[in-house]
Amino acid sequence: MAKRQVTTAAKAERKKDELIESLIAIVGKDAIYYEEEDLLAYECDGYTIHRGMPRAVVFPSTTEEVSQIVKVLHARKIPFIPRGAGTGLSGGAIPLGGEVIISLVRMKRLLEVDFANRRAVVQPGFVNLKLTNAIAEKGYYYVPDPSSQRTCTIGGNVGENAGGAHCLKYGVTTNHVLGLEVVLPDGEIVNLGGVADTPGYDLLGLLTGSEGTLGIVTKITVKILKQPEALKTVCALFDRVEDASHAVSDIISAGIIPAALEMMDRIAIEGVEKGNYPVGYPKDLAAVLLIEVDGIKEGIPDQVEKIIEICQNRHVREVRAASSEAERQSWWNNRKQAFGAMGTLSPDYLVQDGVIPRSKLPEVLEKVAQISAKYGLRIANVFHAGDGNLHPLILFDSRVPGETEKAIAAGSEILQVCAAVGGSITGEHGVGIEKKEEMRYIFNEQEIDLQVRIRDVFNPENLCNPDKLFPTPSRCAEVKAAAHGSR
Amino acid sequence: MAKRQVTTAAKAERKKDELIESLIAIVGKDAIYYEEEDLLAYECDGYTIHRGMPRAVVFPSTTEEVSQIVKVLHARKIPFIPRGAGTGLSGGAIPLGGEVIISLVRMKRLLEVDFANRRAVVQPGFVNLKLTNAIAEKGYYYVPDPSSQRTCTIGGNVGENAGGAHCLKYGVTTNHVLGLEVVLPDGEIVNLGGVADTPGYDLLGLLTGSEGTLGIVTKITVKILKQPEALKTVCALFDRVEDASHAVSDIISAGIIPAALEMMDRIAIEGVEKGNYPVGYPKDLAAVLLIEVDGIKEGIPDQVEKIIEICQNRHVREVRAASSEAERQSWWNNRKQAFGAMGTLSPDYLVQDGVIPRSKLPEVLEKVAQISAKYGLRIANVFHAGDGNLHPLILFDSRVPGETEKAIAAGSEILQVCAAVGGSITGEHGVGIEKKEEMRYIFNEQEIDLQVRIRDVFNPENLCNPDKLFPTPSRCAEVKAAAHGSR
Repeated sequence: MAKRQVTTAAKAERKKDELIESLIAIVGKDAIYYEEEDLLAYECDGYTIHRGMPRAVVFPSTTEEVSQIVKVLHARKIPFIPRGAGTGLSGGAIPLGGEVIISLVRMKRLLEVDFANRRAVVQPGFVNLKLTNAIAEKGYYYVPDPSSQRTCTIGGNVGENAGGAHCLKYGVTTNHVLGLEVVLPDGEIVNLGGVADTPGYDLLGLLTGSEGTLGIVTKITVKILKQPEALKTVCALFDRVEDASHAVSDIISAGIIPAALEMMDRIAIEGVEKGNYPVGYPKDLAAVLLIEVDGIKEGIPDQVEKIIEICQNRHVREVRAASSEAERQSWWNNRKQAFGAMGTLSPDYLVQDGVIPRSKLPEVLEKVAQISAKYGLRIANVFHAGDGNLHPLILFDSRVPGETEKAIAAGSEILQVCAAVGGSITGEHGVGIEKKEEMRYIFNEQEIDLQVRIRDVFNPENLCNPDKLFPTPSRCAEVKAAAHGSR
Repeated sequence: MAKRQVTTAAKAERKKDELIESLIAIVGKDAIYYEEEDLLAYECDGYTIHRGMPRAVVFPSTTEEVSQIVKVLHARKIPFIPRGAGTGLSGGAIPLGGEVIISLVRMKRLLEVDFANRRAVVQPGFVNLKLTNAIAEKGYYYVPDPSSQRTCTIGGNVGENAGGAHCLKYGVTTNHVLGLEVVLPDGEIVNLGGVADTPGYDLLGLLTGSEGTLGIVTKITVKILKQPEALKTVCALFDRVEDASHAVSDIISAGIIPAALEMMDRIAIEGVEKGNYPVGYPKDLAAVLLIEVDGIKEGIPDQVEKIIEICQNRHVREVRAASSEAERQSWWNNRKQAFGAMGTLSPDYLVQDGVIPRSKLPEVLEKVAQISAKYGLRIANVFHAGDGNLHPLILFDSRVPGETEKAIAAGSEILQVCAAVGGSITGEHGVGIEKKEEMRYIFNEQEIDLQVRIRDVFNPENLCNPDKLFPTPSRCAEVKAAAHGSR
């Protein structure tokens, strides 16, 4: 594996040197930051636990500029990081120190909408929600809807293979990407996919979710879907979290695939009710489910009725469908602010992102409660229950010595629980810096090595978003030695 | 790229040598063929244009046996080919000469069905249709339904990323595979996926559709779906193929996603009416559409009505929904025998498999007609119209000197047309031996090279299904030289 040395000399040298001059020659002087005060905002992304100082931030406007920038950096062996809106939650866009950040926010155009073939072509900096807004009038929408959809970019979504509340029925980003234009880590431009089911290896799928380690996406063709004829949201309030968990399984087992099936537990409810969009949930509730069904108008009432019946069989306290679009929106606004609203409960929080088989929900929630007790940290649970994607929010206070470390350890332990029941360490937030070492919970050495060798096909010098996604080689070797010793 | 030499000496040497003894030591003497008369059936698969003699055929019963066989072959640098039921249509399981075929037909067990999490685990030799049959009683089914589903194996389906008539709404094999156990080309065993959305690179997607060039799949976890509450099939008879094509686009544009949307043209209708399952289509028809919608009972009548209205607006001669399940079955039996029924029209036929954007259907069908006229060969069109997946059936007589070559050339020209309108050279049949060179229609040199380098990560010595899927290096170099010369 190629290794990269960031010297302190490189870190200090942030003046207008030959490199900066070369980059200015490509993008112009108004499309680059290299002074320390301008760089501070790029020290971290949505994952605030780590920080690192980039050497510069460049803002290309075209694919050709991206290619030229990468060629300049590649020739000088200077590492670089593609970045969208910086809303990522696993530190995928955080510098380790000395990288050049290639920000795609100026490449933000909607290039084409092809209604007949149901696809749209966007630049990577195009904001997720703007796509749906642009095509809504004609009755279409773009499915993946991360909570950050008002700010996050579709390029970033491709990098992280982003999900969202409405991905249960229709799939995450990779299920909606039809084609990519990519600048490879040596600056060459390739086109992948274009129509569904291209032959050969699925490079499109490989790039999607590769967290910026295989190249920089500069153009994206996505599927657009016709809006469902009708939709209805049911809200169900439970006194026991186990009942809510069982209701989730029962709904899916009944053959209903909701467009969204969300759950919040007691602490999460406490947070969202103190946030900007309270809906008046009772304070003593154990869990809330939001269940949204969509499809053909005539099919909706039966499904709603069946969902209500299932909740009643699971001892629901109160359950009903939204009486108006305004009420439905209020429920969703309340839910979508959940992460931010944790700020009302605690100075800091760490959001985790594990996946488990749906049937293990009650068992895993019980273990999360035990981990909470063990570390003495409150843990709120907000999650895409339908696809078993947990988001435990670990509340802590970084001013208390040792509490940040405790929060990180508790998060890691939760991921171990997820892995142990046959689940995964991330559903939609990615690995980034945060979970490099936790990759060992679900992959053995050989499986990681296979992936690193694939990275090396694209990115042999580890210049493109270096040292993310995979365990560091030294740790690898230690773990390997330990594992061999114990066999 | 690693190159492999098959010497005539190796071809001739089919006696019980040291290799055969080593393989017998693993699988026993009743699980191997090595005499010429036993090997004849393995000279080709569903693609009958090429033939090649294997060195032996082994029939392992366990993953461990597959691993041991591969280790024996790897150590001796002897190439090998995984094979399912041999129904593939692009020659992916055909020996070039001297390979050992590893047949997975004895690994045919259904290992587990997990209704709560909606998945099933099968061995690679398990026959596609048997999965649906095994779970139908509980109201579930497995979606991908290639025409060969009564014989083809799920392992083969994974290798080819197989589709089928009902993949329009629910996706092809890759959308239904959750996990794979794979014996790598060096004999090591790895597990990929397991739960949806594992982090790191999408190796599961990479393996699916890799046509046996990256390893041998020995266990497969697939999604199972709840059967739709109701379904209805509409049959529409057209006097003009353009009208039928436009009706296809209109249906999709109206926001209806049928479970299946199939089309047959005049010559195809002539064939199926002479086959085993005639339904009495008028002889002078230009095109038949079969449109199946599924979902919640209450939603069906409106969709059927809308489909009928769309067909009427496109000057349909006759259109109606099936009046009974028996009638519906008769329409599908008629359609599903289409390839075989071409035998009633011609001594030989070559089935092609191109993909085009749906909106280009009328334009491409016109060009196919021109190609038919140019080569003086009749071409029947049977296809998954909903996802733009054409299956032109080129009728020829191999006894007429030069006609086989003409058929191959006509097929290749059709693929060029598909590629030129932004489509692809295969939708579901794979590349195999047949379309190696045609990969150049849709990938440039760099894009092919990237894929070959990924193959080399798994299969560096090109022992595992060698010299399939990618253009031969010599041709590569020629095309490269020609392309450079003409720029």
